[in-house]
Amino acid sequence: MIQITLIQIDNYGPWTVTPGPRAEPDLQTLQSRLYGDLEREFGARGGIVFYNRFDNLIAISNGIDKEDHIKIQESIHNRYPITISMGVAARETPSEAQKVATEMIQKGGGAQSKDRCEVLNIDSLANAEDSKVQIAHIDIDDITNTLTDVESAYDTSLVVYDVLNELMKELYKHGGLCFFIGGDNYMSPSNGITKNELREILKKVDEKTGVTLKAGVGISKKPGRAADLADLGLEDIRADLTDDSVLVFNDK
Amino acid sequence: MIQITLIQIDNYGPWTVTPGPRAEPDLQTLQSRLYGDLEREFGARGGIVFYNRFDNLIAISNGIDKEDHIKIQESIHNRYPITISMGVAARETPSEAQKVATEMIQKGGGAQSKDRCEVLNIDSLANAEDSKVQIAHIDIDDITNTLTDVESAYDTSLVVYDVLNELMKELYKHGGLCFFIGGDNYMSPSNGITKNELREILKKVDEKTGVTLKAGVGISKKPGRAADLADLGLEDIRADLTDDSVLVFNDK
Amino acid sequence: MIQITLIQIDNYGPWTVTPGPRAEPDLQTLQSRLYGDLEREFGARGGIVFYNRFDNLIAISNGIDKEDHIKIQESIHNRYPITISMGVAARETPSEAQKVATEMIQKGGGAQSKDRCEVLNIDSLANAEDSKVQIAHIDIDDITNTLTDVESAYDTSLVVYDVLNELMKELYKHGGLCFFIGGDNYMSPSNGITKNELREILKKVDEKTGVTLKAGVGISKKPGRAADLADLGLEDIRADLTDDSVLVFNDK
Amino acid sequence: MIQITLIQIDNYGPWTVTPGPRAEPDLQTLQSRLYGDLEREFGARGGIVFYNRFDNLIAISNGIDKEDHIKIQESIHNRYPITISMGVAARETPSEAQKVATEMIQKGGGAQSKDRCEVLNIDSLANAEDSKVQIAHIDIDDITNTLTDVESAYDTSLVVYDVLNELMKELYKHGGLCFFIGGDNYMSPSNGITKNELREILKKVDEKTGVTLKAGVGISKKPGRAADLADLGLEDIRADLTDDSVLVFNDK
Repeated sequence: MIQITLIQIDNYGPWTVTPGPRAEPDLQTLQSRLYGDLEREFGARGGIVFYNRFDNLIAISNGIDKEDHIKIQESIHNRYPITISMGVAARETPSEAQKVATEMIQKGGGAQSKDRCEVLNIDSLANAEDSKVQIAHIDIDDITNTLTDVESAYDTSLVVYDVLNELMKELYKHGGLCFFIGGDNYMSPSNGITKNELREILKKVDEKTGVTLKAGVGISKKPGRAADLADLGLEDIRADLTDDSVLVFNDK
Repeated sequence: MIQITLIQIDNYGPWTVTPGPRAEPDLQTLQSRLYGDLEREFGARGGIVFYNRFDNLIAISNGIDKEDHIKIQESIHNRYPITISMGVAARETPSEAQKVATEMIQKGGGAQSKDRCEVLNIDSLANAEDSKVQIAHIDIDDITNTLTDVESAYDTSLVVYDVLNELMKELYKHGGLCFFIGGDNYMSPSNGITKNELREILKKVDEKTGVTLKAGVGISKKPGRAADLADLGLEDIRADLTDDSVLVFNDK
Repeated sequence: MIQITLIQIDNYGPWTVTPGPRAEPDLQTLQSRLYGDLEREFGARGGIVFYNRFDNLIAISNGIDKEDHIKIQESIHNRYPITISMGVAARETPSEAQKVATEMIQKGGGAQSKDRCEVLNIDSLANAEDSKVQIAHIDIDDITNTLTDVESAYDTSLVVYDVLNELMKELYKHGGLCFFIGGDNYMSPSNGITKNELREILKKVDEKTGVTLKAGVGISKKPGRAADLADLGLEDIRADLTDDSVLVFNDK
Repeated sequence: MIQITLIQIDNYGPWTVTPGPRAEPDLQTLQSRLYGDLEREFGARGGIVFYNRFDNLIAISNGIDKEDHIKIQESIHNRYPITISMGVAARETPSEAQKVATEMIQKGGGAQSKDRCEVLNIDSLANAEDSKVQIAHIDIDDITNTLTDVESAYDTSLVVYDVLNELMKELYKHGGLCFFIGGDNYMSPSNGITKNELREILKKVDEKTGVTLKAGVGISKKPGRAADLADLGLEDIRADLTDDSVLVFNDK
């Protein structure tokens, strides 16, 4: 079971333009700081957060219980001009888990409701026995020499975001999610996707976008540990310890 | 003339995996903090930064001179475990400016070169007379009711990133750039794109993606001011003060 | 047993002036961020950190084990240009605990040694049974009306720092420590100091400095919880629920 | 003329305990972040901020005008749960300047007034011609070998804070201010204090506290530059380029 927390800023849209539009550099700083702080809070407890849309962040939160979620909510309202609501659900696949987590938040009120404040709706938590997180860390082969050092910055970005778009769609068809984590790196919570399926997905995206993708996959009880294992897998591929496009490390 | 600074972390890829892969939550925090801090530094001087790929950030930097750039570089190496190189160029269109800014950095060495450290290569700066920044702030009509509050978080993200992908490509064909700035918001440095062209671009993306886009456009000597004007334009459209999909405010 | 972690930046003095002196606003930002981040890391795990001298910080760390300390060290070197060493010790009184924690660090090398890097020397950890943290939250009666709103900012600071100086000395005589936590607030890890002793200490400092002090005291297994209880005690005194200068809440 | 900005958090005391006391690690993080951010904002504009009491911060702000102050205020309320008021004054000595700056804030309402919000009262600004900032950077001779590496952390702190207390009082008698900036370092805005007076002040504090102090002094139109020059002076004394306890660099 993978446990997902959907984090949504309460009534954020209206706040950004009340009384008038707030300066964009201030909003960008606010959003990046909020993301960084949530990453610290979940990270210190073994989880990992993806910024997703910045006002709707998605955390893999196996091992983080109700009390922890409350403390995180409080630590945000004690330091930010905004509050956050959270929905939590544990399911077999990331796509199902985020779906139920979203419903949990929606049940608490709309994203632009003035009345919703710091809702915490938990559908379910992964327990120690059934907790399982599979994360794939995907990157583009040799992007520095093929793109970054020879193309314009924006031309490289076009490719990187095109790949993101394709990965997001393809992985979702198999129950996985995908997030951009900077550079040419993507992370995919991917419980239930087999090594073979992942190989096929990467190949499909390769063909559509003209790059070559590879992936390290980590499987563990804890999100942070799964990400670490995924990194190690990717490192071994980079070091040519395998010529497979996918390498899995499982400590379960 | 729009002035663009391309900011690139020196030798970042190798650093993230030396001696072994560093914990992903730490890297995510580092990247989001770096982005937030660069936003503060450029923002305090009238500029604006887009995170782009986090290790390659793009700033609109009209009004920010060589000495300021040096101070920003120093303030980063004084507080971070990494250093940044920068390329700067002023051109008629954002696409040209970023192209030359990239070449300026590439001239200083590769993104994964061990020898490159804090290069600052300035091709040209916009001067007070010819400085001009046009920024479009684009968003999706009524996303809260059509997506956020009714679809799953990830389904909404699929649409938002699909729109991003299309906007990135379409605007670039006309010399503009496009960046995601959170929620359902995009910012496009767009010098040289007429109101009519922008209307057509939005319509084209609408048709491809199934959403309805609108844009406030700001034109000013300073990036921060142009973004403020764009926000005001968008606000007026939201308030139904016009039924056009594009509204331009120009203080030049 | 109170568990104290002494955190020391490695070779910080020399770093601040190499190759030449680094800009003071950068160093001040670095130090305040480092403090804030350590507060988050220890805080997320139930602890609390005092900035002390900024390059030598003191944490009450009951409940935080070796693995946590290692993760905190790593998260700092992954995001900062400096590294930290730590010494840890659990003792009956805060003064003894910090003494042994200091020796643990000193054993690892000098504060300006080039060779010392990320030492973690643990003398002892408080276990679940014998863990006990007593924290006094002390403040100045009605400082807003007697000082802040009528005297100059610096004249008020003179009093606040004078009180700090006296509290630091007096509490230490009884085995306690004292730290300034902003405004007119002080926190004293004070295991072993009785209510009566504390009353006498406050009276003595009152007489020397001309202010009137009061204190809420919290006793718990966890530092964060002890601080919360101390806050509640102070609130009750402020609300005139008692006319004693000291109020103790003990959840052990 | 030295220009001082007194920054005060609006109604902070009541906020920290409403509805109940907020968690101390959260407040400590909030305060240290606020200080760090104000340091960035003033620092990017050539100024320097001292945390003073964290809820009452003192900035040397020569060269920073009304519009800048407004932008700084806005950037804080856009990212923090609190707002700040500011009083500004330029005078011959730091002690006078902070006195008038305080009165400017007090005129706007009490520190715990519910009605005061984002007051900005400017008595006067230093203009380009008469702008002058003198800053002394003072430290303790060889503290690493005499204290940090041989005494307990808290015993060292006792000395460092004792020295602070004496410096604060002595410098104030001569029109100067003094702030602790971490480690064994103090910064004193000290317009009007001669080299000889400063030598005498250091000697007096040496005798009272048992340490040996030295000071680099910088004089410039801009606060950041004055601090840089002070650092250089201190470096030269450390390098034994002089056997005087005070070295002055003046670029005016």
